[in-house]
Amino acid sequence: MMKIDILTLFPDMFSGVFGQSILKKAAENQAVEYNVVNFRDYADNKHQTVDDYPYGGGAGMVLKPQPIFDAVADLREKGQTSPRVILLCPQGERYTQKKAEELAKLDHLIFVCGHYEGYDERIREHVVTDEISIGDFVLTGGELGAMVVVDSVVRLLPGVLGSEESHLRDSFSTGLLEHPHYTRPADFRGMKVPDVLISGNHKLIDEWRTKESLRRTFLRRPDLFDHIQLTDMQKKWLEEIKNDQK
Amino acid sequence: MMKIDILTLFPDMFSGVFGQSILKKAAENQAVEYNVVNFRDYADNKHQTVDDYPYGGGAGMVLKPQPIFDAVADLREKGQTSPRVILLCPQGERYTQKKAEELAKLDHLIFVCGHYEGYDERIREHVVTDEISIGDFVLTGGELGAMVVVDSVVRLLPGVLGSEESHLRDSFSTGLLEHPHYTRPADFRGMKVPDVLISGNHKLIDEWRTKESLRRTFLRRPDLFDHIQLTDMQKKWLEEIKNDQK
Repeated sequence: MMKIDILTLFPDMFSGVFGQSILKKAAENQAVEYNVVNFRDYADNKHQTVDDYPYGGGAGMVLKPQPIFDAVADLREKGQTSPRVILLCPQGERYTQKKAEELAKLDHLIFVCGHYEGYDERIREHVVTDEISIGDFVLTGGELGAMVVVDSVVRLLPGVLGSEESHLRDSFSTGLLEHPHYTRPADFRGMKVPDVLISGNHKLIDEWRTKESLRRTFLRRPDLFDHIQLTDMQKKWLEEIKNDQK
Repeated sequence: MMKIDILTLFPDMFSGVFGQSILKKAAENQAVEYNVVNFRDYADNKHQTVDDYPYGGGAGMVLKPQPIFDAVADLREKGQTSPRVILLCPQGERYTQKKAEELAKLDHLIFVCGHYEGYDERIREHVVTDEISIGDFVLTGGELGAMVVVDSVVRLLPGVLGSEESHLRDSFSTGLLEHPHYTRPADFRGMKVPDVLISGNHKLIDEWRTKESLRRTFLRRPDLFDHIQLTDMQKKWLEEIKNDQK
């Protein structure tokens, strides 16, 4: 069972996300155990202060090293294996599905979430093993980033996804964007499903889907082609698609 | 006041995130109004089914067009201005701070969140105005993506952030990664704060911070330099940093 500890000043933020759907089921099936901890409980000063003014001046507060150092030390001791300590921050490495797959193989993850403060640099240097950014946008704290990483990791744990739910995994495993999907009715208020999908000809359906995946990837994310090996047939289709667009 | 509607099958996922910290305060101060709607309530069939098998076969379910079409039509009618209808999906445009700033200027946003199903293509083509992906990783649904977009947008609304909290906005507004932060104690268990930050010499402190921003950006995200205009002094420092690393 994977152990996931979250250090945050806003533990109630996590209840909705961890208490629903697949993340909830994963905990019920003992694939994962969540432990959301308010690191203010570890502050060793009388007023349980966790932040302070920055050295050198400037606006904003900075998270003090002591509460985080001591919280992580305590959670390390309670675990059975050496954990990865993950800091969510804009300076971190860009999160990808590859990183999700790497983290899904581990036994114990500790997430450190600050909230509109900066982090004392000594936390980064001496406690944290991985700094992760989910993208080039500014959030009010690391909590949403931690939820994103947890969600993407937990769904990869053995037994968590049923076969029904697992198909979307394809999206990045083929390296191409997904082809369009359609369901009933075939004619919805005048908007029709492509004929080929109703033809019953599975060879033609597979071909249409591959071509539409190639087309969508070419139009929206041509950078993805740098990372995948196309078959000769796919290369030929991609050339046709490029000519179509001219 | 910005109006934010969320269409989801898991409305309870949002309570923790919208009910805490800055997103909560923003609603209390009437900068924003959240309306989380279960689109199953709009299904016009007896069993309130919202998904069905894909045309052409294959694993997984596909969200039917009818409930989403009708839910969006109803929410459009209730709004006073033409809304943007945002679909969270891996095929969407990559979310950035620039997009957050664009969305923060609007009056009404509707988010459509599917959950481990695909979307019928007619939803994309005829209802949705913006498709957004928060990154190249697979999540169990669009809900976390919607929360990320809402968080990054709402914090930009006028009056939402106090001056204390707003400094982290700097992270992407200068285009460089942030310099390290330190707070008391100056010596924490043998780990010390750099002398310059305690020197009281503000010219040297500013210089140190700019250099460390440049250094961190060079080491971690050199791609960011493509999008910013450095001063002559910054260019000189960057050359020194590059030489340091050799």
